[in-house]
Amino acid sequence: MKIGATYRGDGWTSFTVWAPLRKSVAVKLVSPVERVVQMEQQAGGYWYAEIRDVFPGSHYFYKLDTSTERPDPASFYQPFGVHGPSEVIDHNAFKWSDSAWKGIPPEEMVIYELHTGTFTEDGTLESIIGKIDYLEKLGVSAIELMPLAQFPGERNWGYDGAYPFAVQNSYGGPEGLRKLVDICHSKGIAVLVDVVYNHLGPEGTYVQDYGPYFTHKYKTPWGDAINFDDMYSDGVRNFVIENALSWFEHYHIDALRLDAIQGIFDFGAKHILKELAEETDRFSSGSGRRRYLIAESDLNDVRVISSRENNGYGIDAQWNDDFHHAVQSLLTGERKSYYADYGTLDHLEKAFREGFIYSWDYSLNRRRHHGSSSVQVSGKQLVVCIQNHDQTGNRLMGERLSMLLPFEAVKLAAGAMFVSPFIPLLFMGEEFAAQTPFLYFISHTDKDLVQAVRDGRAREFADLYLGQSFYDPQDESTLAKSRLDWKEIASEKGKGCFIFYKEMIRLRKKIPAMASFDKKRIKVEALQQKNLIIIERHDESGCIAAIMNFGSGSTVIEPGIINFTGNRIIDSSEERFAGQGAVLPQKIEKDVSYEMPGYGFAVYEF
Amino acid sequence: MKIGATYRGDGWTSFTVWAPLRKSVAVKLVSPVERVVQMEQQAGGYWYAEIRDVFPGSHYFYKLDTSTERPDPASFYQPFGVHGPSEVIDHNAFKWSDSAWKGIPPEEMVIYELHTGTFTEDGTLESIIGKIDYLEKLGVSAIELMPLAQFPGERNWGYDGAYPFAVQNSYGGPEGLRKLVDICHSKGIAVLVDVVYNHLGPEGTYVQDYGPYFTHKYKTPWGDAINFDDMYSDGVRNFVIENALSWFEHYHIDALRLDAIQGIFDFGAKHILKELAEETDRFSSGSGRRRYLIAESDLNDVRVISSRENNGYGIDAQWNDDFHHAVQSLLTGERKSYYADYGTLDHLEKAFREGFIYSWDYSLNRRRHHGSSSVQVSGKQLVVCIQNHDQTGNRLMGERLSMLLPFEAVKLAAGAMFVSPFIPLLFMGEEFAAQTPFLYFISHTDKDLVQAVRDGRAREFADLYLGQSFYDPQDESTLAKSRLDWKEIASEKGKGCFIFYKEMIRLRKKIPAMASFDKKRIKVEALQQKNLIIIERHDESGCIAAIMNFGSGSTVIEPGIINFTGNRIIDSSEERFAGQGAVLPQKIEKDVSYEMPGYGFAVYEF
Repeated sequence: MKIGATYRGDGWTSFTVWAPLRKSVAVKLVSPVERVVQMEQQAGGYWYAEIRDVFPGSHYFYKLDTSTERPDPASFYQPFGVHGPSEVIDHNAFKWSDSAWKGIPPEEMVIYELHTGTFTEDGTLESIIGKIDYLEKLGVSAIELMPLAQFPGERNWGYDGAYPFAVQNSYGGPEGLRKLVDICHSKGIAVLVDVVYNHLGPEGTYVQDYGPYFTHKYKTPWGDAINFDDMYSDGVRNFVIENALSWFEHYHIDALRLDAIQGIFDFGAKHILKELAEETDRFSSGSGRRRYLIAESDLNDVRVISSRENNGYGIDAQWNDDFHHAVQSLLTGERKSYYADYGTLDHLEKAFREGFIYSWDYSLNRRRHHGSSSVQVSGKQLVVCIQNHDQTGNRLMGERLSMLLPFEAVKLAAGAMFVSPFIPLLFMGEEFAAQTPFLYFISHTDKDLVQAVRDGRAREFADLYLGQSFYDPQDESTLAKSRLDWKEIASEKGKGCFIFYKEMIRLRKKIPAMASFDKKRIKVEALQQKNLIIIERHDESGCIAAIMNFGSGSTVIEPGIINFTGNRIIDSSEERFAGQGAVLPQKIEKDVSYEMPGYGFAVYEF
Repeated sequence: MKIGATYRGDGWTSFTVWAPLRKSVAVKLVSPVERVVQMEQQAGGYWYAEIRDVFPGSHYFYKLDTSTERPDPASFYQPFGVHGPSEVIDHNAFKWSDSAWKGIPPEEMVIYELHTGTFTEDGTLESIIGKIDYLEKLGVSAIELMPLAQFPGERNWGYDGAYPFAVQNSYGGPEGLRKLVDICHSKGIAVLVDVVYNHLGPEGTYVQDYGPYFTHKYKTPWGDAINFDDMYSDGVRNFVIENALSWFEHYHIDALRLDAIQGIFDFGAKHILKELAEETDRFSSGSGRRRYLIAESDLNDVRVISSRENNGYGIDAQWNDDFHHAVQSLLTGERKSYYADYGTLDHLEKAFREGFIYSWDYSLNRRRHHGSSSVQVSGKQLVVCIQNHDQTGNRLMGERLSMLLPFEAVKLAAGAMFVSPFIPLLFMGEEFAAQTPFLYFISHTDKDLVQAVRDGRAREFADLYLGQSFYDPQDESTLAKSRLDWKEIASEKGKGCFIFYKEMIRLRKKIPAMASFDKKRIKVEALQQKNLIIIERHDESGCIAAIMNFGSGSTVIEPGIINFTGNRIIDSSEERFAGQGAVLPQKIEKDVSYEMPGYGFAVYEF
């Protein structure tokens, strides 16, 4: 069921809203002219009205049972923020020029995650357009926008969105997004949007006045879970499915990144994500190009990405955070919190070979067995990164990897990601080893909520950082500190790092063996004593091998360790990458001994 | 990990208990001689002690952190009830004589559900032995015992069990069960036990003193859910798995009926039921004969009975309550509560054809879409009944179908079950149209709990029965009223009904077409206007057809409705079944008109 306000183009606007337990619902237009129009009750708990002389730009609330006035849960625009009226949007006004765009399947993506508010000086969607040539030059084929759904205030990561259908007003609203997507498509870049279906708000969330959007049955870190399997859940499920389709239809979005699906509780016979995948496929068939779903999942459950015929959800791909944690803890030596479960070369070896490291193994951090085996899963269903907004932002000081590690180690980590049989994801700025932190920031207007957020973070950090002070999330300067400093790219390291990333992406595109997702044709050797991982990747068209020293000191590669004779195609320590010069020779041979300096990374073709 | 007290046979007993957050645990022997023996901490939160001169019959508590004394959560016997000490049991003392027993797969089962406390005058497991010849004569191949796990007091359906490993003291404890099973096996009858893994107790449940057996994450009708996926869940999962294996190993149980699995919440990558099925298979391989799991599931989710390779749980079979509800509401005309979703001939038609009636259809009672399609599921994975303890006992007056319907309708219902492509389950007494109710009864010692149960049932019944009074669950006479009156079998109807059941079971065993589980070879025609359902069942060795009039009045079978020429093999109205004589002729033909009286049921071979 289509919900929200739909401008028909002839001076008429139709309104549909779900409020199954209300006795009367009306549209209250507040501008340009105030009027109240009663809605008609329809099957399934929906209310409907067609109203004349309602043009795009009109503002409205819904009036529930004569007294309660609330914005539209499916509002497409909240020009005055989460508490104000909703605005009628004409989704057909924009002149799209991307009809030739065929999309990019996940396996061809190199994803660049960015936060609109801190990526550019303006912090708007439209201002991202100025960076597209840069991204094209870097070689990424997809940008992933952190959540755009209307959140309270002007500063937020986006996970406090209260209006899943509305593009954040301070980001420039629906128009800004359409412009950005249209230009990205003209440059061959796909656009992914991060959507949050595990909770809403809390500030500015009025859906509970409309119906049973939440259930007491399950508890999430944000309170009662969204109701996907309890009484009246059909309307809530429709809300989520229509939301996904709205991003595809109204904004030509290529794929959705589904936030933290471990917070989506559905014990019914058809999991909401299964239905969402079905409906995404149906939409794809109708629209002529495929749209994709990529889940952020903490479950290590292959069912998420198994086919629906196989009792899976049929989600196209999912994040594999195990890879990040293995790389991060191995290089930083950190063992706190979830890093307690990682840190050895063996962990990383398993990630390269299988994908999930925890495949029903005992997790110290979780204090239980965790995960399922991903041996049978294609690498093109797993997205990996060496940092993202979460891993960076959920630290006391918001440090990126480039602020925690020596420069050579940063390039090694990136190299490891690019030679892995998985889809790589970059976090904005990592390509030039940015030195700006990415901190947690909010701009709620509800003072109690602000204090609750501060207290929550204090608690979270208490164990980890022994009472050290941290940046106030509500302080305006916290966002400002997190804004990328584009001048850094002109520095020696900034430039060297950028060229390294660019070159790795270029090689991955050029060399089939490097871009292959066939885990059966990867050979991984981890030499614990030597901190050394050697990966061979085989393909009909040729083979490559990456030699990686994860130790800070030099290591000796004795005769016999290398199984091939090959020519070097890249070395992260080359001078063009702001290094001291290649660590291994141009030609490598089987029976020779080599000494490889700390954090060395080199790739050979053979 | 094996838990509980294990008598080694040489005067030594070993004790293992899981208490991951305790600083010290000791065995406190209370008889025959009082002593306290400290236990040793082991990996995974377990505590262990081997103690000399502890013989079977010794009584003990565990002492937690020096002060708290509690019975063993994995106690095998609670001779003094749920609050008393646990008793050391020698599982090897019994001389089994069933080594030749090969077991019966679910598809060969005709299951007879019984409640130990009300099945016989004595209400013990041993006294069931006196009825085995009777059950053999009836022809059932399996008995399913309502829960045996130690519950508070002497009167209970069994779903308030607090000690899943202990056989109820008032039923005769472990010894009684072993005797019963051994004799059943010698007579070719399998024994199923109903086990409850969705909650414990509440009265007498002390597991929370041992560890995080419960989680706040999910709420069940009984409070916090059992912890299968939260921190420390490994120990809880082991508790449940070891419990299942204990029934198999120590009591030679053939299959477990898993109570209400919709109350088992596990969002981890390996659902506890999947692991339980894995471990059951492993045990089966090791023990030389297969053991089975049959779930009671309200989810209509085929995943439960899908193979593990297919992301299912790999449970062998599940109850399909849709069949019961369709038959019950069609014949009684009841539409209250969950019967609101049933009542037409079409519902029953779908049940015969597919299995689940709700296969992602909108349910009025649930106010949401419900279920998944069971079209691809073999009938041998679905258990059906026309009554069971729940459907009978959860009524104000505990009426069986035979107390609600005319006698001919009762036989029709039974006939429909026996000609269905599913595993039939009978509830004790239905085979002689018992006129005793099956009421809800308890004998808690906790007064507040007793009142809470009374209040809960009053609430439950308030809507359905407009404040009518009901039997007090705590009153001793409530169980007495529910005891089967075996004299009834000598009555005309009692005898006629018994012979009908016996004959239907005999025919099902004899005629492959009737016992087939191949839903693809069943043809179901439902003629709404005529209240008529005709089922044809095809098989290489021959075909049968059942003609059923679900209306109370007579209906005309016009020429052309019958597609075959066949010979009658049974008619529920025959005089031997205490009827008025067969309702249809010995030979039926295609182009003849027949008038069939109300509730007629006849089966033809062709």
